[in-house]
Amino acid sequence: MPGFLWCPRGGVARLVFICCCFALCRRPPKLREISWLLFVFFSSDIEISRAQSPKAVDVLAKEIGLLTDEVEIYGQTKAKVRLSLLERLKDQPDGKYVLVAGITPTPLGEGKSTVTIGLVQALTAHLNINSFACLRQPSQGPTFGVKGGAAGGGYAQVIPMEEFNLHLTGDIHAITAANNLLAAAIDARILHENTQSDKALYNRLVPVVNGVRGFSAIQLARLRRLGISKTDPGTLTEEEINKFARLDIDPSTITWQRVVDTNDRFLRKITVGQANTEKGFVRQAQFDIAVASEIMAILALTTSLQDMKERLGKMVVANDKKGEPITAEDLGVTGALAVLMKDAIKPTLMQTLEGTPVFVHAGPFANIAHGNSSVLADKIALKLVGEKGFVVTEAGFGADIGMEKFFNIKCRASGLVPSVVVLVATVRALKMHGGGPNVKDLMYLTISINFYLIAQNLQLVADGCCNLQKQIQITQLFGVPVVVALNVFKTDSPAEIDLVCKIAKQSGAFDAVPCNHWSAGGRGAVKLAQAVERAANQKNNFKYLYSLELPIVEKIRIIAQKVYGAQDIELSPTAQSQVDRYTRQGFGNLPICMAKTHLSLSHQPERKGVPTGFILPISDVRASIGAGFIYPLVGTMSTMPGLPTRPCFYDIDLDPITEQVKGLF
Amino acid sequence: MPGFLWCPRGGVARLVFICCCFALCRRPPKLREISWLLFVFFSSDIEISRAQSPKAVDVLAKEIGLLTDEVEIYGQTKAKVRLSLLERLKDQPDGKYVLVAGITPTPLGEGKSTVTIGLVQALTAHLNINSFACLRQPSQGPTFGVKGGAAGGGYAQVIPMEEFNLHLTGDIHAITAANNLLAAAIDARILHENTQSDKALYNRLVPVVNGVRGFSAIQLARLRRLGISKTDPGTLTEEEINKFARLDIDPSTITWQRVVDTNDRFLRKITVGQANTEKGFVRQAQFDIAVASEIMAILALTTSLQDMKERLGKMVVANDKKGEPITAEDLGVTGALAVLMKDAIKPTLMQTLEGTPVFVHAGPFANIAHGNSSVLADKIALKLVGEKGFVVTEAGFGADIGMEKFFNIKCRASGLVPSVVVLVATVRALKMHGGGPNVKDLMYLTISINFYLIAQNLQLVADGCCNLQKQIQITQLFGVPVVVALNVFKTDSPAEIDLVCKIAKQSGAFDAVPCNHWSAGGRGAVKLAQAVERAANQKNNFKYLYSLELPIVEKIRIIAQKVYGAQDIELSPTAQSQVDRYTRQGFGNLPICMAKTHLSLSHQPERKGVPTGFILPISDVRASIGAGFIYPLVGTMSTMPGLPTRPCFYDIDLDPITEQVKGLF
Repeated sequence: MPGFLWCPRGGVARLVFICCCFALCRRPPKLREISWLLFVFFSSDIEISRAQSPKAVDVLAKEIGLLTDEVEIYGQTKAKVRLSLLERLKDQPDGKYVLVAGITPTPLGEGKSTVTIGLVQALTAHLNINSFACLRQPSQGPTFGVKGGAAGGGYAQVIPMEEFNLHLTGDIHAITAANNLLAAAIDARILHENTQSDKALYNRLVPVVNGVRGFSAIQLARLRRLGISKTDPGTLTEEEINKFARLDIDPSTITWQRVVDTNDRFLRKITVGQANTEKGFVRQAQFDIAVASEIMAILALTTSLQDMKERLGKMVVANDKKGEPITAEDLGVTGALAVLMKDAIKPTLMQTLEGTPVFVHAGPFANIAHGNSSVLADKIALKLVGEKGFVVTEAGFGADIGMEKFFNIKCRASGLVPSVVVLVATVRALKMHGGGPNVKDLMYLTISINFYLIAQNLQLVADGCCNLQKQIQITQLFGVPVVVALNVFKTDSPAEIDLVCKIAKQSGAFDAVPCNHWSAGGRGAVKLAQAVERAANQKNNFKYLYSLELPIVEKIRIIAQKVYGAQDIELSPTAQSQVDRYTRQGFGNLPICMAKTHLSLSHQPERKGVPTGFILPISDVRASIGAGFIYPLVGTMSTMPGLPTRPCFYDIDLDPITEQVKGLF
Repeated sequence: MPGFLWCPRGGVARLVFICCCFALCRRPPKLREISWLLFVFFSSDIEISRAQSPKAVDVLAKEIGLLTDEVEIYGQTKAKVRLSLLERLKDQPDGKYVLVAGITPTPLGEGKSTVTIGLVQALTAHLNINSFACLRQPSQGPTFGVKGGAAGGGYAQVIPMEEFNLHLTGDIHAITAANNLLAAAIDARILHENTQSDKALYNRLVPVVNGVRGFSAIQLARLRRLGISKTDPGTLTEEEINKFARLDIDPSTITWQRVVDTNDRFLRKITVGQANTEKGFVRQAQFDIAVASEIMAILALTTSLQDMKERLGKMVVANDKKGEPITAEDLGVTGALAVLMKDAIKPTLMQTLEGTPVFVHAGPFANIAHGNSSVLADKIALKLVGEKGFVVTEAGFGADIGMEKFFNIKCRASGLVPSVVVLVATVRALKMHGGGPNVKDLMYLTISINFYLIAQNLQLVADGCCNLQKQIQITQLFGVPVVVALNVFKTDSPAEIDLVCKIAKQSGAFDAVPCNHWSAGGRGAVKLAQAVERAANQKNNFKYLYSLELPIVEKIRIIAQKVYGAQDIELSPTAQSQVDRYTRQGFGNLPICMAKTHLSLSHQPERKGVPTGFILPISDVRASIGAGFIYPLVGTMSTMPGLPTRPCFYDIDLDPITEQVKGLF
């Protein structure tokens, strides 16, 4: 992903563009910069990825101390790691735990993934410290839609990037299959209940097979939940049969949606059940993008196979007609969901361009979901690096959303304590926050916007640092030392770089360091790695932002005011009634996962810098009981991206002779 | 899949049931039968599967002559095989090619998969002849719905059966992703065309990026198809811009449907596009089960990466407003589809319980699709077994549909000539065809039906052999020798077995052999293997049933009359107009893939035996141009199964400690 390469892709245009950049910078190019120019001129992310042959993944697995029976090889460059390792290494002390977060980004991203990868490359290959990067698996929606892949870029990439960006080891597909089996089970159950008498329904649910009738294990569990201790199907009273056989789902309360891992905007609102065979039981429904599924959140937050199975069973999909929650367990599908997810729970091992180990596992978005890779990958990596080693993971989008959820949701689930936060900033984004032009889409950057952003402008940068300062303050709320990583573009002037670092340190950062990992790999992030190492030895006063015991609305208000800087919050009547319902159902003590735009600290994407005086509108409140959080929707948040007029796939191709992928970035 | 085990699953019920069977057979049990009784009493398919540890797949790969760089390992028991092998072994003569087909089955299946597996086990482990089984990948719809898995059963299974029945190596997921990306692209394109002027559309499709504007490779290809030889976007006339930028898709002609690999009946007919963001462009659509996707058919029929890419590009998804076909290539998505399918094209290597190699690759249903595993797996296996070896593959459902499509569609695509057909029959199914009770569902077999089918009844068997005779005659239309494999159930009497074999030979079979592979593995199919070996040395007069040059309607009529025994065919007005359209569009010379029930030779599932005098109704005619066939719909055929009141998943569970799957069969 060329998150911080503002360079046209055509040959001549690139050359002209880069020469102009130097002209604007008002100084002759250095030798290093000329070589960079040649590189940019001739290379793309996928070409750099392909130029480096990854070591065989079984060799990598041995290097990092995995036993043969703890690894399941998938081709030459990917492997799944079995959870049994956690038992083997349970007495090994954990390494240091580093979170990479960012300032409020432009839609192009400011390079958190590349900083994460550059940092572990610097630690391992240049400072001889064991380290591991833990990243999210990208959704195929953006890969073929607008954004492209997410394997990092330049000389800070996960390789092979096409393996990272495509099916990987099938985890998102497994989530899709599990999610949609549950969705099909809900509608089919409503139809069967609506078209059969209690007796017919019971006879089908508990059939006589060759003269013998018995409950399945999952049915016996349901009987126990209903307080019926009988085990012989022939002895249930009519009332008990009715209680057992009817879930009585209220179709208007169904919150479980189908998913696809495709940007399919026409599935945002649909009507299902219109074939004659469904006998008129039509209803309005929707598809979400697969990474928004609660099952994805569960994969990211679970700590064991047993825990995952319990969470899958607890997922609330609707209410019954009395207002009581209906779970996946009530539908008898927990076991099947766990079976579908049995391999997905194992993190996938890959490597960076410099051979550093990487776990890719789980990929919730940070705006509509909790935006962090898996607890299990972090836990395994922390054991593998040893006490003096480092595990670097990334929280999606700006620190106000990704990092806040990392601390309050992910760290609560894992019990892990982070050592350092690395906060990524770019001069480009700071100029935007300072009042510069709004960067929208790499494809549609005009020359005027490009040059405006490229030309030195210390005032814009200084003004924009308010956002950096605010994000540092947010980090400090959690008591963890913060190192600012300025992801340097070749067009940033030395004065701009110095200014950002100075303001960052004045604002309370432990240190602030310019990084050149994109063009120089780990070598370009050595100073950052040294700063992170020093910061990790600082005193750490990690604390959560709110107590779980507080009422739902109070927890939302704390996040809105302390993190986003809102004056207050305002709940819609729907949101309020949902809060009341969840509180009544006993779900009030869960952490909060805000669904908010990532493009502003506020709910209004166009408000850059540090907006103040706004009232945060909570339009709806939903619950992911299996994942273990309540998620309020701030304004209108789409859970299904769309394809633009010219999607990424126009440039993607496969060479049938060499089998090489082209145009993926 | 316990296709031919009519035995209750509960412990005591099983014991009583089996004792009754022996009583009804009017003879004392033999020692072998008592041991079988104990086996049935204590084991299930998954327990047998688990009792045998598969050899490591890299060991298997070496045994069968694969080089290290031709194998991509997926875990301990699965590997993908690279197509480069075909180039390396191109001068090696092919082995013998055996097709396993069947008589018209009961809904429980008559054991073609177990015969296929038993036969290769017999050939390799007992006759020392190299052999390979090529099977379809099962859909997860039936696995969690009604039917269960499809890995064979008893001592003729692919192991581990849970790997076979679940995600395998992700091929069906890749098909789903590719299919749905194309579907999303169609609706998004219609929306973008409807809401933008020619100029705006063109500017977005061919944007100015940093002052430079260029067509992508796929856009240049479109220009060439439109007869526009320009390459500079600035030089197109207004008329050329209109032609280039507008596909002008007529939404009412869209034949491309979305898919999921789940039995989700509520998606059979839906309305999409109801969110405000889609600006009122709603339309009626549907989801099919993933294995019904044209991309699945392409995977099964393709012969190389280049060929697959071309077929993907040629897929017709709709017509434009002038009635001309719109292809995937017109939508600019061919390259992305090929990238998504780049690993799926490699067959997956597994093994039988006795260590014989198995390819699992592609899984189209035989009623609504062409029902055969992949050409590539067969081609690779034919090279690997060597000139004297055997490759055994299976055609779905009865010979009237699976085998007919194997010969007329799959053999045409591959150019391969089959040596022998093995036609599988069971006494159970023959009794049904002779007028016995209709077997519906294993779960709901009553004791009375069970015992009726079990008790010796030579008259019913003799009458039912009309179906066997007819299927032998159908095979003979293609000039290939046929061996009947009677899949023996322990409750079949010797007189019944002898009778079937006698009638089969009188009806023109080269040989007819009882098989006991389910209870005895390869040893139980040695006689079948010997008969197949002899038959393979017979003169072979293989021919297709019809010439491609004939008009579409004539080809349909030949299949209906010669294969199904219909008096004639009758096309609905829709079907006729589709035939006219496809003929006009130049697609008249494709083979025919009938979508017909598998439960009768006719279109009426309840008509068993050999129905005569019926007029076959063709309700609609569709085209899979990329796969390369026209498919007429006979009566009403659902392309999306539903979940029953009590789906299979009620019994499926995962033990979180041992990680073992339970209840999958």
